[in-house]
Amino acid sequence: MKVHPEEQTVFEVCLVVPKRKTKKEDATCDCVEVLENSFRKVGFIVERIDGVTDEFMKLAAPLEVLGKAAARLEMKKRTHIGMDLLFELDEVDAFVRQPDGSLFSWSERFRCYDHLIYGIVNENQSAVTLKCDEEEFQWKIGESLVRTLESKKIVKQIFPLHDEIRRKKLLGNWALNWWNLTGQPIDEVYSYFGAKIALYFAFLGMYTQWMLFPAALGLILQLVEFGSLRLLVLPIFFISIILWAIMFSQFWKRKNSALIARWQINYTFGGDPGYRLSGVDCTSLQVPVELIKDQEMDKRKEKEAFQKIEWFGRLRRVRNDAIVILSIICLQLPFELAYAHCYEVIQSDVIKFGLTVLYLFAIQYFTRLGAKMSVKLINCENYDNNEKRADSLVYKVFGLYFMQSYIGVFYHALLHRNFTTLRQVLVQRLLISEVLENVLENSLPYLKYSYRKYKVRSKKRLEKGSPQGKILFTSRAEKEYLKPSYSASIGVELEDGLFDDCLELALQFGMIMMFASAFPLAFAFAALNNIAEIRTDALKLLAIYKRPFPRAATTIGAWLNIFQFLIVMSICTNCALLVWLYDQEGKWKIEPGLAAILVMEHVLLLLKFGFSRLVPEEPAWVKANRVKKAAQAQDIYSKQLLRTISGGEKALNNVKKTE
Amino acid sequence: MKVHPEEQTVFEVCLVVPKRKTKKEDATCDCVEVLENSFRKVGFIVERIDGVTDEFMKLAAPLEVLGKAAARLEMKKRTHIGMDLLFELDEVDAFVRQPDGSLFSWSERFRCYDHLIYGIVNENQSAVTLKCDEEEFQWKIGESLVRTLESKKIVKQIFPLHDEIRRKKLLGNWALNWWNLTGQPIDEVYSYFGAKIALYFAFLGMYTQWMLFPAALGLILQLVEFGSLRLLVLPIFFISIILWAIMFSQFWKRKNSALIARWQINYTFGGDPGYRLSGVDCTSLQVPVELIKDQEMDKRKEKEAFQKIEWFGRLRRVRNDAIVILSIICLQLPFELAYAHCYEVIQSDVIKFGLTVLYLFAIQYFTRLGAKMSVKLINCENYDNNEKRADSLVYKVFGLYFMQSYIGVFYHALLHRNFTTLRQVLVQRLLISEVLENVLENSLPYLKYSYRKYKVRSKKRLEKGSPQGKILFTSRAEKEYLKPSYSASIGVELEDGLFDDCLELALQFGMIMMFASAFPLAFAFAALNNIAEIRTDALKLLAIYKRPFPRAATTIGAWLNIFQFLIVMSICTNCALLVWLYDQEGKWKIEPGLAAILVMEHVLLLLKFGFSRLVPEEPAWVKANRVKKAAQAQDIYSKQLLRTISGGEKALNNVKKTE
Repeated sequence: MKVHPEEQTVFEVCLVVPKRKTKKEDATCDCVEVLENSFRKVGFIVERIDGVTDEFMKLAAPLEVLGKAAARLEMKKRTHIGMDLLFELDEVDAFVRQPDGSLFSWSERFRCYDHLIYGIVNENQSAVTLKCDEEEFQWKIGESLVRTLESKKIVKQIFPLHDEIRRKKLLGNWALNWWNLTGQPIDEVYSYFGAKIALYFAFLGMYTQWMLFPAALGLILQLVEFGSLRLLVLPIFFISIILWAIMFSQFWKRKNSALIARWQINYTFGGDPGYRLSGVDCTSLQVPVELIKDQEMDKRKEKEAFQKIEWFGRLRRVRNDAIVILSIICLQLPFELAYAHCYEVIQSDVIKFGLTVLYLFAIQYFTRLGAKMSVKLINCENYDNNEKRADSLVYKVFGLYFMQSYIGVFYHALLHRNFTTLRQVLVQRLLISEVLENVLENSLPYLKYSYRKYKVRSKKRLEKGSPQGKILFTSRAEKEYLKPSYSASIGVELEDGLFDDCLELALQFGMIMMFASAFPLAFAFAALNNIAEIRTDALKLLAIYKRPFPRAATTIGAWLNIFQFLIVMSICTNCALLVWLYDQEGKWKIEPGLAAILVMEHVLLLLKFGFSRLVPEEPAWVKANRVKKAAQAQDIYSKQLLRTISGGEKALNNVKKTE
Repeated sequence: MKVHPEEQTVFEVCLVVPKRKTKKEDATCDCVEVLENSFRKVGFIVERIDGVTDEFMKLAAPLEVLGKAAARLEMKKRTHIGMDLLFELDEVDAFVRQPDGSLFSWSERFRCYDHLIYGIVNENQSAVTLKCDEEEFQWKIGESLVRTLESKKIVKQIFPLHDEIRRKKLLGNWALNWWNLTGQPIDEVYSYFGAKIALYFAFLGMYTQWMLFPAALGLILQLVEFGSLRLLVLPIFFISIILWAIMFSQFWKRKNSALIARWQINYTFGGDPGYRLSGVDCTSLQVPVELIKDQEMDKRKEKEAFQKIEWFGRLRRVRNDAIVILSIICLQLPFELAYAHCYEVIQSDVIKFGLTVLYLFAIQYFTRLGAKMSVKLINCENYDNNEKRADSLVYKVFGLYFMQSYIGVFYHALLHRNFTTLRQVLVQRLLISEVLENVLENSLPYLKYSYRKYKVRSKKRLEKGSPQGKILFTSRAEKEYLKPSYSASIGVELEDGLFDDCLELALQFGMIMMFASAFPLAFAFAALNNIAEIRTDALKLLAIYKRPFPRAATTIGAWLNIFQFLIVMSICTNCALLVWLYDQEGKWKIEPGLAAILVMEHVLLLLKFGFSRLVPEEPAWVKANRVKKAAQAQDIYSKQLLRTISGGEKALNNVKKTE
């Protein structure tokens, strides 16, 4: 039998604790010693490393330890008959392995680590006194050790460690594999980073690949002189772009479900074991079986409770959305319009530049404020799980960014019909800002990392007292600790760095789609940019940041809906642009041309909403597999189940009779 | 214990055979005697009735007989743990009973009857010679007796019988319960007629109930003089109507899923035991378990086969739809426009009348032709089950009816801006044609029934030779045999009478919605009409027609999509109407008013497509119940299942090792 990756010792999680001056003698009371012993008792393989300023504790868990944790977590896993069943260590062979041969996926593994690390509680009869240098404190009965240490700032951070072998391999065949254009080893990315990040890269890859078609069209439109045919060519371009976008979004859904099927992830979220409705745990509403059967009234009461919760939650969400939308329209819209208007009116370049700088600072502040408000609003809504909460944040914050990014462009395009300024703005945004962003996105974290290293070194030097002598970071763990974490620019509580990457993509998509008929060349810029984006994003994840926390996911979440919304918007805006282009004298007269454009708009909108009926989201083979397996499973165990159920029924009847 | 309905002998199915002159002596060879004996052997309770011209064989089946058939059919039924499992007679207690206390629903019962009746095959070693009067024929080995007799025209018809007790009860508390306005005993309708018809009536009831709101609004608009405010009131009316329609369609979906949950019907179709993809049975593509695991290539081949079938089927469907749409646009549209134009131009009333008569005959012919073509096209498409095929027919045929019903109205409204003619046409269609249709729909079948009775009587008299003497139809079975069956006016192969009823509803909905701003009073007419429709439709089903064949269904099928389509259409047409109304001088100038209407249109369209995100189709309590039950079931049997799976795995591994 071949050795599965997790059977080799790979340290996957790291704890950071400060250096202490304890002597070896009173090690029994030293909190870090206690921690290490507890870890060993749980079954972890622990390696301690002395860093420059801190101490690092690397953890690895053998398969049995993870399995036990998974069983305790009541984790559901895909079995060979296609059903998802509660994990049992004794029946390991019944469960399907990951494509890379390991039993648990990275996000499952991390969940187990998390459970094990925080699961160490004081099971003694009395509180334990722990020491850290001079400080003494109590580890109370039934309290988690790691949480106690975290509250005392002794455990400074817990973060997932890079796996050097696999990281190097990915660097070679993914991040630095420039010649592969849009190709990526998605399965390896999945097993290293988890589903959410892998789905993002799969999406980015497919998007870039599909982008080559409109890029070519745009180039042709730019290079070939159509002369008098130009007014005919533009609508054709517009229609084909919209069709392209509609097909892309539907085919991405198909690819998504194929990927999910390949990775053996269940469609219904496997993360939450108990079904929770709008924050009310089902178990609290659960009525005993006999009650349900005998008393119809109770069932009705349960139903009413559910309905109340459902509608109450919904109303709260609607109210929050209304608040967000109103505040965007009433506060942000006038501000953005004022800026756009001033920019249009002011003649002096110096004042223009000053204005822009002022504006950039202001929107930074506004965005942060908006995100904070959104997070607060979301916290009073109740969602099933964290991913839905993150999606809600994305919707709310995207409203802000939408106004920020497009309202100025709309102003130039639609109100002033100033197509030269429009094209200038588009080129600016697409070329300069994207290149700048890419550079910043990669250099800023590196600068941060270097600065931190410098700070640690100078601190060390101060302690030593000698300004000379080179200090080397010999341990990999310490280097990783100093790297910045993959976190979002706003709404850190709910999102990680993926938010910024997806936002960038969505804003780009909106920019090129909504003004497609005004500037067809944009697609070519975007395609080039995205090809670079794949590699730089990969590089960023592998080399510059800490290994991100894995997130379970089945889709790219709210972003796909935002893409769909942008497609609908772009149908409308492009039609408006075409009307403006044709009606150059500003006569505003309804002529056959305008009627034709309106008809075209409606047909395209119809297509947009009808296409999902034509091509289902789930490929036939995925569905067939799923249904076939479920049917197989049921057929095998049908009889066995039945006997037990009807037996239970009979027992129940007997009980009733004797009563 | 109370006696469940099916434990009383209720004759539910009837066979019609001709009267023969056989003497009692050679009864052994008489085919009807053989048939009766076979039925008794299967377990049926048989009652033979001598009618005026034919003989009737009424069948009833005790619970055990039905249960055995259900087990042989591998029927899946809901159990108390919420899972659907294969039915087993020994474990009856494990299965949930219908709301009316019976074990099988009417459509399940009928499936069993069907299976039992056609399941009688010749199991002897040689063919059996059967006689009918003088004619002799062979019942070959392995052939179905009833099919043989049907091919010889001896079994003239098999039809479900009314259950007199329940029919009378339903007549009292449903069909003749006029004062109950929109209330209906839906659960009783479900257990008597099956899910499809019950869903139609539930939909009709809810639709009528909701209709009262726009009817009241329309009445207010008609009765109150708004004076100069009129131009402001109309858009408000339009917006509230659209919002009403959007909410109605979404809330119907919720009601639908609540009903389905109450009736214990599974969402995924329970009718088809094997999963069939585009006509290819899964079993034929099924690869042995070992092959799948070892050979990745085979899996890929299977996937490719699936994809080929999927895309091929889809392309064929798109081609067919294109044929239908093109033929409607190229053939029907000019014809309808020509008629509308002639009607507008011609002055003489006599010629107008003649033209209309000619037109009515022509469209009758066209519709029949179109339906035949559609059925042919559908037969070369491959669908999972018959309901999907019926839906496909509905979509195709509705295209025809859409053109027929609305294109003339559009012509008056949009091209000629002739609002007087428009209102006239609407009143005509809504009042006269609906009343006429209701009368026809009820009287035609009755006339048919009377005529058939008369024919049978006169035939009998001829045989007897004496023109005098009254002939009475004493048996209920014979009377029911003479009643017309509940069949569709077109596409009889795929649909039953529900098609006409739903079509009437959909056409009415389109008529009142699409021209709402031109004629707000229409809603009041429609509401009145629908209140009458509920009772007349019920009466029709209970008193005038044979009991319809039960159809399994989980939704009202294609009709809901057609309603949704009509809502979208009505947003567009009403906006056009509003523009036309305001722009009375025909200046065709874009003014703020037009821009406002366009914006309003887009906002409403957005709402239409966004609303389903706001309010999910499945009420929270239904979903919670479903998920909770499924989780319960899995948790109980998880361990047991696992052991068997991993045992199988180990056995497989052992086999591999020994090889």
